[in-house]
Amino acid sequence: MTLETINQKLAYAWTNEMPFNQLLGLKVTFCDKDRAEIHFDWHDKLIGNKAQKILHGGVIATSLDLAGAVVAAANIVAQMSDHSEDAIVENLSKLGTIDLRTDFLRPGRGEKFIATSTIIRSGNKVAVARMELHNQDGLHIAVGTGTYMVG
Amino acid sequence: MTLETINQKLAYAWTNEMPFNQLLGLKVTFCDKDRAEIHFDWHDKLIGNKAQKILHGGVIATSLDLAGAVVAAANIVAQMSDHSEDAIVENLSKLGTIDLRTDFLRPGRGEKFIATSTIIRSGNKVAVARMELHNQDGLHIAVGTGTYMVG
Amino acid sequence: MTLETINQKLAYAWTNEMPFNQLLGLKVTFCDKDRAEIHFDWHDKLIGNKAQKILHGGVIATSLDLAGAVVAAANIVAQMSDHSEDAIVENLSKLGTIDLRTDFLRPGRGEKFIATSTIIRSGNKVAVARMELHNQDGLHIAVGTGTYMVG
Amino acid sequence: MTLETINQKLAYAWTNEMPFNQLLGLKVTFCDKDRAEIHFDWHDKLIGNKAQKILHGGVIATSLDLAGAVVAAANIVAQMSDHSEDAIVENLSKLGTIDLRTDFLRPGRGEKFIATSTIIRSGNKVAVARMELHNQDGLHIAVGTGTYMVG
Repeated sequence: MTLETINQKLAYAWTNEMPFNQLLGLKVTFCDKDRAEIHFDWHDKLIGNKAQKILHGGVIATSLDLAGAVVAAANIVAQMSDHSEDAIVENLSKLGTIDLRTDFLRPGRGEKFIATSTIIRSGNKVAVARMELHNQDGLHIAVGTGTYMVG
Repeated sequence: MTLETINQKLAYAWTNEMPFNQLLGLKVTFCDKDRAEIHFDWHDKLIGNKAQKILHGGVIATSLDLAGAVVAAANIVAQMSDHSEDAIVENLSKLGTIDLRTDFLRPGRGEKFIATSTIIRSGNKVAVARMELHNQDGLHIAVGTGTYMVG
Repeated sequence: MTLETINQKLAYAWTNEMPFNQLLGLKVTFCDKDRAEIHFDWHDKLIGNKAQKILHGGVIATSLDLAGAVVAAANIVAQMSDHSEDAIVENLSKLGTIDLRTDFLRPGRGEKFIATSTIIRSGNKVAVARMELHNQDGLHIAVGTGTYMVG
Repeated sequence: MTLETINQKLAYAWTNEMPFNQLLGLKVTFCDKDRAEIHFDWHDKLIGNKAQKILHGGVIATSLDLAGAVVAAANIVAQMSDHSEDAIVENLSKLGTIDLRTDFLRPGRGEKFIATSTIIRSGNKVAVARMELHNQDGLHIAVGTGTYMVG
């Protein structure tokens, strides 16, 4: 399999086989070793503050965590390109978030949301990603930093 | 109204009138100016890793954020005990998470989960809370620190 | 006074009148409402790991905290441009770091170091800045996020 | 060597052979696999705000980072108690802070300061510690959380 095929499989699995991502409607629309992108739509069930009609902070944190985890996963895959598919799957099964910081910059208002991530530390044990959340008009809603166990 | 009545109203509202808390089944079972407690049950829709059958990190972050926000809210209420109910409601409407750090210590396995919070910085503009997540057997799953805008 | 003059005074004070900044040799070389820049030189007293001859993590955290505080300060000043100098000084005296996250990406090796900051949340009570540390060759050593009380 | 002897050697080395710890006067007064303690005295060179005569946030972050690193180191040592001293030293040489969050709760005023740490995640690759800073009167000045690479 090419890297691109593996990344597409990853994106499919994170979008369609993770119950909580499905519950929130999070879709992995892109990932490679440096960058990932998650899209989701406004839905009333995602409201955290009824008076203000804004996203719950937990929705924002979840989308940033996913964006960071996906780029960390694609980063491992790229580092293991000469390993067997089984070895890669085995390694990916160990992927986990160690810690996550989320900064809530503006109220989460919008119709569509885009969470993006970039790798800022790449290693064979630990990866660090920085994430951002914007709405369809480019309004900057949140940033985050996540540390992931990758090996 | 007594402080206790207001805290009970707060707990009711956070549990029953916030769509995303309801979607996850988060229940505010206690809050006063120093401490809050959130309970929720395992449900398959909360899964973040199908192979491992563990809670999504976003569920953990959401429960910790709620625990911190609730104690921050109850803390404002206690500071404003000589104000009118309208003034208190007005102030609570401005409550928001500024930033949240979550440390994932162990896989989120269990049947019942308890998120607790304590206030470590109390002010008229900013409050800071520390949070912990355990399961029904006392397994320590996560800790967090949240900074909240309170005035 | 113009904004530029006030920013120059701020940069001078942070560089020459803060004992711990002087001890480390931190120099504020630029600040305006959106961005600040700190320079410092390698010195053996800044070593955190003798075997590896690298900067102590505390030096890195200090330089990032300063970079964030300076841009937060310049940001308040710009928001208060129609206030008296006394009011601005009074407000600046309340400036304080609420919390700071530092991510250590690579060992702190180099001869000269540059910490930069940008404002990502600007408010009349709380500001949030993102910071980066590079060495003279552009090696990316650390990133950070700081939340500052500004009013 | 017994664990206790190794821990005493560690405490000695962190106190007397790390230039930046010496510059700040940080003394490791205790460490075992679960807990560490750092003491330091007020000194004018540690001032971060001349008007207020309080510790620089960077001093606070440095003392918390050290407290966390020391307990993480002692924790590795205890896990490796059946390994050779060379293997332990080799492993300790890889110890590094991955990320550090510091929450500044109250102005850093006092004559003597005590930073304490406890291990909340112990592993063969990554350890997480929580830290606190108090002054001689028990005033709670800061808390922190640090993630350390240990293997």
